[in-house]
This record gives sequence, structure tokens and C-alpha cells, in this order.
Amino acid sequence: MIVRDLNAARQTDRLVNADGWDSTRLLLAGDDMGFSFHITRIHENTSHVFHYKHHFESVYCIAGEGSIEELDTGTVHQIRPGVMYALNLHDRHRLTAKSEMVMACCFNPPVSGQEVHRADGSYAPIAEDA
Amino acid sequence: MIVRDLNAARQTDRLVNADGWDSTRLLLAGDDMGFSFHITRIHENTSHVFHYKHHFESVYCIAGEGSIEELDTGTVHQIRPGVMYALNLHDRHRLTAKSEMVMACCFNPPVSGQEVHRADGSYAPIAEDA
Repeated sequence: MIVRDLNAARQTDRLVNADGWDSTRLLLAGDDMGFSFHITRIHENTSHVFHYKHHFESVYCIAGEGSIEELDTGTVHQIRPGVMYALNLHDRHRLTAKSEMVMACCFNPPVSGQEVHRADGSYAPIAEDA
Repeated sequence: MIVRDLNAARQTDRLVNADGWDSTRLLLAGDDMGFSFHITRIHENTSHVFHYKHHFESVYCIAGEGSIEELDTGTVHQIRPGVMYALNLHDRHRLTAKSEMVMACCFNPPVSGQEVHRADGSYAPIAEDA
């Protein structure tokens, strides 16, 4: 059995900081669960475009409020605690936080943890999937 | 993109009620994400033995307090918001809630949603994996 605590994990390299969000990887590919599990915080009043071309991701809102826009259609869904979205079509999307959002995220295939961002703030190619 | 709300899902057959706990399946096998995702509530002052012989499960505590005992070793871990456990060894375990615990659960392989409990309170054999 693996037992991990978010607050402890945030003191380690499990915490990945990015511009306007951070993500703490509580399970990674090396844990051999077949998925990875992250707690991600989207900072207040920030907006981000993501496109996971090779992964499925589900995101459950634990706290905070915002919205997600399907960029291919313009459809906007409100996000509040209790709302889950799942990118079953590798949907290109814009995530906007009105207040800090705390999200529980599952990735399949699992993220390896190697997908760190580069000094220029971008990601190496593999990272676009993380 | 799939978008589902916990409160709405609890009004449908996505909510599975059991003795001392309930689980709302926000993603099931039919969603083709490669995992299922459930919000499970363990009722206050209840204790449960689970053993998922054929699934991996991760469980993240959103709210509430309790403990998990590894039944093969007797080791007990405290559960509070921010703690995640992952049954990477199909661990037989006892989950005990001091206060109502709200947990975000991922299963691989995904639960089909057919694993309902029987009239006698037990599960059909397939359900021991759900």
C-alpha cells in the first residue's frame, strides 16, 4: 500500500510549479497503478490553454470556481465544487479560475514525472501531454 | 468532453448505496477513459473490509477523518484531508470513519457499473472487485 500526504508531497519534487498553476503528483507512472493522480491548483484570475494529445484526463473540482471552454466549439461549462470534466476526445480547452481552484486529476496513461517545464516557461514536447 | 455534476449524478443510478457507505460513479468503463472515477462517502462511525483482488484503486481524502488498516500486517494509517492511499498490491484493508469521509477514488481497470449489491447485502462475485 502506498500512503502519501499532499502537504508533505508539496515539499518534494512531486510539486511542479508553472505560471499560474501548480500540480502535486501523488501517483506517477512508476507506481504502476496504470494511471497517475495529481492535485492541481489553478491560481485565482488566471486562464490556461491545455491540449493533451496523447492522454485522457479527468478533473474533479474540490474547491474554487471557474469555467472550461471547449475551444473547438466555444461551449463553456461552469466549474464549481462537485463538477467533473473528462477529456475523452483529447479536447483542446481553456481553463479559467475566478477563484483558486483545487482539482483532483487522473491521467491515463500515467504521467512519468519527467514532464517538467523548461527555463523559458514552455514545456519540452513530451510535456504537452502532461 | 464529458461534464458531470456530483449532485445531479446522485439523483441517478450512478449513486450506489451500500451499508455504511455510498459511491457515485462519475466515470465508468463505458466512458472509455481507461479508469473509473467515483466520489465515495464512508458514513460516520462505520468500518468496512474491502479487498479488490483484480483492480488497482487510489483513494484521496477530500473531507472527514478516519483510518485504514493493512490487514496482512496490522499497520494503521491515519486518514485526513490531503491523504491518499493506493492499493498497488491489491491490499486487503479495513477502512474506518470517525467522521463522514468523502473520498475521490480511481479504479483501474474501470468499474463497469454492473457491480451492484445483492438483496442480502452482499455482492455478486464480480462486485468484490468494484
